[in-house]
Amino acid sequence: MPTPTHYKRIVLNERPVGDFEPNTFRTEVVPWNLEIKNEDEVLVQILWISLDPAMRGYVRDTRSYLPPVKIGEVMRAQCLGVVLKAGLKSKVKAGSYVTGGFGWREYAVVKDKHVDVVVPPPGTQPLDFLNTLGSSGLTAYFGLKDVGKIKPGETLVVSGAAGSVGVIVCQLGKQLGAKVYAIAGSKEKCDWLEKEIGVDGALNYKSPTFKQDFKKKIGYLDVFFDNVGGDILDFALARLNKFARVVLCGAISQYNAAKPRGLQGYLALISQRAKIEGFIVFDYEDRYAEAIGELSRGLGNGSIKRKFHIVEGGLEQAPKALPLLFNGGNSGKLVVKVADEAGVQSKL
Amino acid sequence: MPTPTHYKRIVLNERPVGDFEPNTFRTEVVPWNLEIKNEDEVLVQILWISLDPAMRGYVRDTRSYLPPVKIGEVMRAQCLGVVLKAGLKSKVKAGSYVTGGFGWREYAVVKDKHVDVVVPPPGTQPLDFLNTLGSSGLTAYFGLKDVGKIKPGETLVVSGAAGSVGVIVCQLGKQLGAKVYAIAGSKEKCDWLEKEIGVDGALNYKSPTFKQDFKKKIGYLDVFFDNVGGDILDFALARLNKFARVVLCGAISQYNAAKPRGLQGYLALISQRAKIEGFIVFDYEDRYAEAIGELSRGLGNGSIKRKFHIVEGGLEQAPKALPLLFNGGNSGKLVVKVADEAGVQSKL
Repeated sequence: MPTPTHYKRIVLNERPVGDFEPNTFRTEVVPWNLEIKNEDEVLVQILWISLDPAMRGYVRDTRSYLPPVKIGEVMRAQCLGVVLKAGLKSKVKAGSYVTGGFGWREYAVVKDKHVDVVVPPPGTQPLDFLNTLGSSGLTAYFGLKDVGKIKPGETLVVSGAAGSVGVIVCQLGKQLGAKVYAIAGSKEKCDWLEKEIGVDGALNYKSPTFKQDFKKKIGYLDVFFDNVGGDILDFALARLNKFARVVLCGAISQYNAAKPRGLQGYLALISQRAKIEGFIVFDYEDRYAEAIGELSRGLGNGSIKRKFHIVEGGLEQAPKALPLLFNGGNSGKLVVKVADEAGVQSKL
Repeated sequence: MPTPTHYKRIVLNERPVGDFEPNTFRTEVVPWNLEIKNEDEVLVQILWISLDPAMRGYVRDTRSYLPPVKIGEVMRAQCLGVVLKAGLKSKVKAGSYVTGGFGWREYAVVKDKHVDVVVPPPGTQPLDFLNTLGSSGLTAYFGLKDVGKIKPGETLVVSGAAGSVGVIVCQLGKQLGAKVYAIAGSKEKCDWLEKEIGVDGALNYKSPTFKQDFKKKIGYLDVFFDNVGGDILDFALARLNKFARVVLCGAISQYNAAKPRGLQGYLALISQRAKIEGFIVFDYEDRYAEAIGELSRGLGNGSIKRKFHIVEGGLEQAPKALPLLFNGGNSGKLVVKVADEAGVQSKL
């Protein structure tokens, strides 16, 4: 394959106020400029891009755990790619699968230290490293075990349970001996969670009887793993057992809101001696191997199921697919297929 | 002293919607009926009553850590009294000072297991057991050390800092090597906190420049010990350092509100990997002795200062004095003097 003359990248065009809009991003076709200048660099062709709710935060200009993406900058994203060319002193071999925050682009030149070489354990595949063995799985694992400290026999409730993190939390919860209830946004998702994922019960938060169903089916809870925020979180605060833990993983209902809905029910934290705790998976980096080991075994023996929502059609599908995360339109881990693996040569 | 023919008690007359109102409570004068029937009982004359913000919760008919006081029932309150008469098999001696939840009444017959005999360590007095050595001090101690886990060099901010719990938190914080900032509601309170209590800085939340002052003087914080809730808590959420702990001790600004103000800023808990945790001092009962030991030493050597706001005039002052807690009218631990110790005989 000859060196391309141009490649595509997608940059932040303007900051959205609420939902992502058609002019939030802009595609740029740039002349090929991706030469390896330092000897510990690699040229990566991006194959898959992970779309994540956190992306709404990345384009907001506020204090957060990562600096906001600047206007005109390539959109931040976790990707799976293949190394086309490695610098002389690079420890990464051409042909390796790698993950990293390469962003919304077809190719990238990155330093060794910014790529993770993917070696799929038995029963897994490279793409799992954007899902169960990537930030979704790691977030589920540390959030449930280290922040939620779930114990056998406790009641775990998971919001956004059909999402990429939620579905792993549900399955880890079952493995750890908890009674697991899932909250999702459609009957189809609830059926899938009950029948395929094996939760003890799933509730549709859009049902007019949601609150009564919650009280009747679940009663009170010990750990609330929250991916959604807003009304559901507030309702959950009224259903805490003593010493309950609310794991604040995300708040997808609030990311597009100009002003987030306030938590009315937080005084229950006093009477129930409970806590709400936020976390960021990056803080557990030195224990990723432990988590990947456990999650791989789950994938291998079938106790953890994977589900992808694959968007085909190349890089330019990314901005169009992203809103699916916020309107409940995806079913499974949302990824964009940027290039066909069959079409990739091991060296450029 | 002959047996009285009647005694007074104050009962809940109707539940307040917002603030306490003149008809929230009702005084009853009842014929003497306080005979010791069981051998492990004592007759107590109440000398002092503690008034506490938690009382607003006690009269609210909602799920909480204690059942609500019923209409017609004596108002719940922690008291200091003296034993006038002890049952044959009681382990408590007549003449002993005792504390307990005797309520708003002049006399009470209670079982041994519901009284704590007060033996003031050197440098302390019985009344300290309604303040520094009672629930205020214990709440400050366990909230700061066990929930807040304050570490030397960290920045501690205390709201309601001139209140009975807050002022002890400030002093314990200094002892534990933290940089301590106090928030209070008047210039006089702030001056007192800076000059007498020795905080590193005190801010008046009623000042029009409060938020700028906070940013300039304090910057970001590691532990927020919150007695107030509402706007101040929400603002504090925007000023959290990474891994900050918000100790939810009380929310005096919200207790009288029919609908509490929602926390807008809770998403900062994710980006800062922070937590909000509530607690109830009763859960630490098996460690009260440790805390009383440490707090007594502080009172004895002068490193912890006490301040009482004494309301004289007997039991009937209690309902009139209670609103002081909610309008910032008290200065120091609010107690009602029910009977003069000089007038109490050791036996009836």
